[in-house]
Parts: sequence; structure tokens; C-alpha cells
Amino acid sequence: MKDSPANQTAPGSLALVGAGPGARDLLTLRAMQRLQQADTVFYDRLVDEEVLELAPASAKRVFVGKHVGAHAWPQDRINAVIVAEALKGRRVVRLKSGDPSIFGRAAEELTAARAAGIETEIVPGVTAACAAAAQTGLPLTERGVSDTLVLTTARCRAGDPLPDCARHAKPGTTIVFYMSVGQAPRVRDGLLRLGMPPATPVTIAVDVSKPGARTVSCGISMLSETIIQHEISGCAIIFITCPKYGSG
Amino acid sequence: MKDSPANQTAPGSLALVGAGPGARDLLTLRAMQRLQQADTVFYDRLVDEEVLELAPASAKRVFVGKHVGAHAWPQDRINAVIVAEALKGRRVVRLKSGDPSIFGRAAEELTAARAAGIETEIVPGVTAACAAAAQTGLPLTERGVSDTLVLTTARCRAGDPLPDCARHAKPGTTIVFYMSVGQAPRVRDGLLRLGMPPATPVTIAVDVSKPGARTVSCGISMLSETIIQHEISGCAIIFITCPKYGSG
Repeated sequence: MKDSPANQTAPGSLALVGAGPGARDLLTLRAMQRLQQADTVFYDRLVDEEVLELAPASAKRVFVGKHVGAHAWPQDRINAVIVAEALKGRRVVRLKSGDPSIFGRAAEELTAARAAGIETEIVPGVTAACAAAAQTGLPLTERGVSDTLVLTTARCRAGDPLPDCARHAKPGTTIVFYMSVGQAPRVRDGLLRLGMPPATPVTIAVDVSKPGARTVSCGISMLSETIIQHEISGCAIIFITCPKYGSG
Repeated sequence: MKDSPANQTAPGSLALVGAGPGARDLLTLRAMQRLQQADTVFYDRLVDEEVLELAPASAKRVFVGKHVGAHAWPQDRINAVIVAEALKGRRVVRLKSGDPSIFGRAAEELTAARAAGIETEIVPGVTAACAAAAQTGLPLTERGVSDTLVLTTARCRAGDPLPDCARHAKPGTTIVFYMSVGQAPRVRDGLLRLGMPPATPVTIAVDVSKPGARTVSCGISMLSETIIQHEISGCAIIFITCPKYGSG
């Protein structure tokens, strides 16, 4: 989507670019092209050293330091620096892990840029759930087994109601938890309370598509112990296909 | 994920490759590379003429004719020809619209190939929901508005229970319907019955990322009329962010 700049004489542009799950070769051709044409690249978690290298040597690279569970830069400040940079007439690429529209805070950055009359674009990317499924060889939907896919997070912030994963845990649904390793006890308890059998298989895809990528499996009742035992922290995708149980 | 071939002397391989939503430049670099190395490419809906052109001129191209709502080739037959081709020692690419793991029938083709001892791999792709969000500029999750994304289909087949989109239509959830244009009345009725306000905005992204891509919006109560009025058929993504209503 492109918005025409309002009344800038030398308007810059902002592209929110999905960088995919980490591996450089999981970038799209369009993402690579935007990087190659960038004057300035804003990034947070660096998914792959080689991704940033796609930008010209002359491009400015700005780390805006968002890690899971630790926001070194508040979102408002990120919005402000991105907008300021584009208003200098530069082609700004804001690199987002995965796809910008899924847990990527895209709306806030787009709104700020549009308000300043900056041309905006989103370049979609491979979201972590798809990369995790590819890595493990387990489908996210399967005929006769699962016809609905739910992407959610068990994380919450002060004042927000906790996303209730349990409300979506119906037979025929695959639930994928993003950024939820720290919330494993809450996920486990929520699902067990529904009557999900304790041995229901859960898959944990760690460092998907990156060096050291691995897959760990367990029953839902052992989710927390398994995460501790395998020293899994941060960058992992937890997924589970809800079997037929209870009243459905 | 790679499985070692069991006891083939000249084993071929099968890569289920996500072709993304249609535009050639929304292929990943890895997808492009697999196409360039392919001996045989199986495809169904041709998303972009240029995508197939990435395969070598010498590569065999086989149309296995799956269109929305019309399966010219039964899945069993597709499985059989893919396996037979790989067993000849060929590098087989099975091109899938979007991401292979989401509504891509990946499990059936992988199971058939693994049973035959064929090395398999999934190359993830950009799924239609992400491309639709990028095209329309509307996020799929948004802080304080939507923290869960549901990908589903309102389609059904004989003997299957209809996927009940209503069970996932909770405040704070964005629901994306794939391949559901023909089921618009069912979607509308299901959501209205829940007490969703008739004016709740619905976005219909048509021919996402392809030539002629367009976006149409309406209130949920007008979904069917809008689809007819704009002559939307087949390739469209319908999405809706559930507002706070009813008991939640």
C-alpha cells in the first residue's frame, strides 16, 4: 500500500520490511531489494548478520534495541526517530522480525509516518509459525485434523487483560504461541483446566531457521519442566494441535 | 527438516515450496533457489507466470490442476505422481500458493514421500493473510486492539463439520478467512448471531499482490451484497477485527 506524500518537497519514505524468521535466504526478493535501496535501516533483534549486509555500505544502520521482554527504546521514541529520518528525504527501511503485521507493532509506526505525510509501504515476510512448521515438518492445518490456526501470545502488560489462550483451544485448532516461553506455566495451566489430556503433544521450535535451530517435544503437562531442562529461553515458538476432548 | 532417504540408490528429493501470494518478488530467496535447481515442478494455481520461469528451461513442468472449489486432480493422484517422479532420482519442487503448512495439504504429500523413503523439505512462504495486511495497510495484531490472529476457512466438505468461525470471534481477535468468498452468507450470519454490530468493518483483499489487486470494505451485514456488487470471486481474503461486544 502506498500513500501519496502530502506536501513534502523532498519526501522520504518508510518501508516496514518483514525480515522473516532469521535466515537470510528466507527474506523475500522484495525485502532484499528494499534493503539494497535503503538510505537508513532501523533494526532491533538482528536475525542474521548477513541480512543487514544487504544494505549499501553507505547506509546508516540504527539499532533500536527491542528484545523480547526488554524494551530498551520505548515505541514512541522509535516512531519519532523513524519519522525524523524519513522527513530528511531518506528511504527508510524498518526491519521487522517475521512479518510486520503480526506482533510487529506496525500500526504505531505507520500511523506516525502517515501523520507526517510520509509515503509508507509494508513488505510482508515469513512469519515464525510458518518457519517453525517448515523446520519441524508438522503442518499447521491438516485435513480432518485441524482447520483453524490461531497465532497468539500468552504475554501481557500492566493493565491489559491476559490473552486467554484457552478460549481458542477447541478441537480442530492449532494454536501457536509467540514469545511465550516465559509464560509456559500459564499456558499449561490454561489448557489443562480445559480438560486437555496431559499427554497432548506440544512442539517447541527453538531459534527457528537460525544456526543451532532445534525442536523439542513433550506432553502439555511437562511444558515448563521441558523448557527448563532444555535451557530454552527467548526465541522459541510453542505449538499444539488441540485434540478432540471435553465438550468441544 | 530433512529426512535421510532409507535405502534408495539414486534417491530424488521433494521440496514443498511456498510461492507466496502471487507476485514473483514475494518469493523467498530459498524458494527461488529450489526452483532454479528443480528437475520437475508441480504446480496448481499459477500465481505468476514469472515464478515458473525461475525453473531451468529443461525442467519438466506439471500442472496438477487444483483450483478453489474444483479439484481436477484428486489428492491421492497428486501424491502418487510426485512420489513416482522423486523415485526416478529427480529434484522435485511442489509449488504451493502462500505457505505450504497453512491450508496447503502439506501433510498428505509429505507422508506419501516419507513412506517412499524420499528426502523431504518444506520451504516456508508468505501466507495470504500477511500479504493482504501489507496490501491494505491494516495490521493483523495491534496493541490494545487485537492480540490474537485466527486463520480459518468457512468452507466445508461432505461429512466434515463446518468450521465454526463464531467460536473464535472474541474481542481482541482478528479473523482471516481463506477461500471463503462463496461462504459469505454463512460467515455473516455466524458473526451477526453472536451479537457483532452489523456495521463492524470487514475488509476484502482481492487478488492480493497480483495485477489488479484491490481492497473493498463494508459492514459485516453487507458482506454478501458487497461481494456480488464488486464481482469478487475466488481469490480473496476476508478479514475482520472483532470489536468488544456482547459478553466477550
